[in-house]
Amino acid sequence: MAPQPGYDRPIGIFDSGLGGLTVLRALHRRLPCEDLVYFGDTARVPYGTKGARTVVDFARQDAGLLISLGVKLVIVACNTASAFALDNLRESLPVPVLGVIEPGVETALRATRGGPVGVIGTPGTIGSGRYQEGLVHGVADLPGIATERIVTGECPLLVPLVEAGWEDHPATDLVLDTYLEPLRAAGVDTLILGCTHYPLLKSQIAAHMGPQAALVDSAEALAGAAERLLAELGLRRRDGLDEGGLPDGRLEYHLSDIPWKFAEIGARFLGRPITDVRTVSLEEMEAAGHLPPKG
Amino acid sequence: MAPQPGYDRPIGIFDSGLGGLTVLRALHRRLPCEDLVYFGDTARVPYGTKGARTVVDFARQDAGLLISLGVKLVIVACNTASAFALDNLRESLPVPVLGVIEPGVETALRATRGGPVGVIGTPGTIGSGRYQEGLVHGVADLPGIATERIVTGECPLLVPLVEAGWEDHPATDLVLDTYLEPLRAAGVDTLILGCTHYPLLKSQIAAHMGPQAALVDSAEALAGAAERLLAELGLRRRDGLDEGGLPDGRLEYHLSDIPWKFAEIGARFLGRPITDVRTVSLEEMEAAGHLPPKG
Repeated sequence: MAPQPGYDRPIGIFDSGLGGLTVLRALHRRLPCEDLVYFGDTARVPYGTKGARTVVDFARQDAGLLISLGVKLVIVACNTASAFALDNLRESLPVPVLGVIEPGVETALRATRGGPVGVIGTPGTIGSGRYQEGLVHGVADLPGIATERIVTGECPLLVPLVEAGWEDHPATDLVLDTYLEPLRAAGVDTLILGCTHYPLLKSQIAAHMGPQAALVDSAEALAGAAERLLAELGLRRRDGLDEGGLPDGRLEYHLSDIPWKFAEIGARFLGRPITDVRTVSLEEMEAAGHLPPKG
Repeated sequence: MAPQPGYDRPIGIFDSGLGGLTVLRALHRRLPCEDLVYFGDTARVPYGTKGARTVVDFARQDAGLLISLGVKLVIVACNTASAFALDNLRESLPVPVLGVIEPGVETALRATRGGPVGVIGTPGTIGSGRYQEGLVHGVADLPGIATERIVTGECPLLVPLVEAGWEDHPATDLVLDTYLEPLRAAGVDTLILGCTHYPLLKSQIAAHMGPQAALVDSAEALAGAAERLLAELGLRRRDGLDEGGLPDGRLEYHLSDIPWKFAEIGARFLGRPITDVRTVSLEEMEAAGHLPPKG
């Protein structure tokens, strides 16, 4: 499609904390000339053990903040927020909204070879049933699978273990053993990593699951979906410019708190040092919750 | 002191989440006829890995909510909030404020037999240096100890392990081994459990530390301090009534979120089922942050 007004505005990405930087990283690799604005709700992280109403309230503030920064697309990098708040945000926001669940489901349905499909995530994400619904209903041209073919696992301790930098600690090995044994025993051939923190445990999870299980990283799947959506809507940055000479996009970070080990954890998710961080005050978050009318 | 106006109002207790229920439990045992109003900021828990400014902002809203419920005393059950926000709250609130750090320090100084004193807590609590300052300065009639006699340990994973109910999982044993080995090796004779979640791991921590280390549970110490303070101020409930026939006080719970496994986790901290819970909306929290002037 021909370039539409607003094509040169940034893409907004929000997450409950720093985990969504794995999504920003995949997006920047796939769409290097797009400006990316990240918001991490580090003051209120985690979302994964909290109730639906709370997560919806927080997600509306997070998205509202990105809208106030003039983004052309909102990406919900947090699996729990995608599970609970995507419909609400799609109805409220004046720009398109993409979550991580649909792209993850699509990739898993393409990858499975007829065996059980596993999903691991926070209690919120698994409890919402959104991955399960997506796998049963299918997406686009892909038919769904039977409920009996789906095996899920709630893994609340993986987020704090990754944030502590304990990916290779023997305790993490024991935790993964407890969480993954039922999925391994069920013989899953495809495992969705349903949380932005889990890609940092990919090799450890792969070791527990064995070579027969393909791991689906939602960040990669989401980056592909974002590219297709922007192209469809005529909102890709390069659509409006000569592709050859386009410089790398600007990366901008907004956080509601500067937490413990922030620089170290941020760099681990992002793959490079995190710089130019702005903190967002509680008052600014409150004001951002009053979303503008859809238009 | 003779009963002062307001002696029959409730005591307010707040915490970042459900851990402070161990403090409520100790208070109810010590002061059974007092009405107790608990607020747990379950929507934004944990505080222990977050920055000082964020914790102060949250603590002011939490305390403001208790003030709006008419309490006569505010107890900061959260160690991280006590570390970062106690001075600010004492300056802002129209009622007396007690934190968990001073009582814990006092108990530890009475318990130590000349050996090193250990403190374990969240990164926020340990990083604030408040326990260390208290131990060095001493309290009341107790002289402080040399900085060289203090050994600290940041234990960010213990909160999520307790919330997952994994106190007896082998992974917790490995985590405790990593956290406690330096304190055990230093030969600490007194260990302050500087987080409201840790009393639930008391027997496991005791097993790792060995019999030479006395464990200081701040909840017990705080309950004693609260009783003394209320007596000094003429604000004990029984001061105004015939002691004999006084019925047990009312227990009231307000939470900003109904989180994962809330009933199960709450009962574990409280020692009985948690009932009559009211949820507090985000808007109500925002309004509570505007503390009334001191008077």
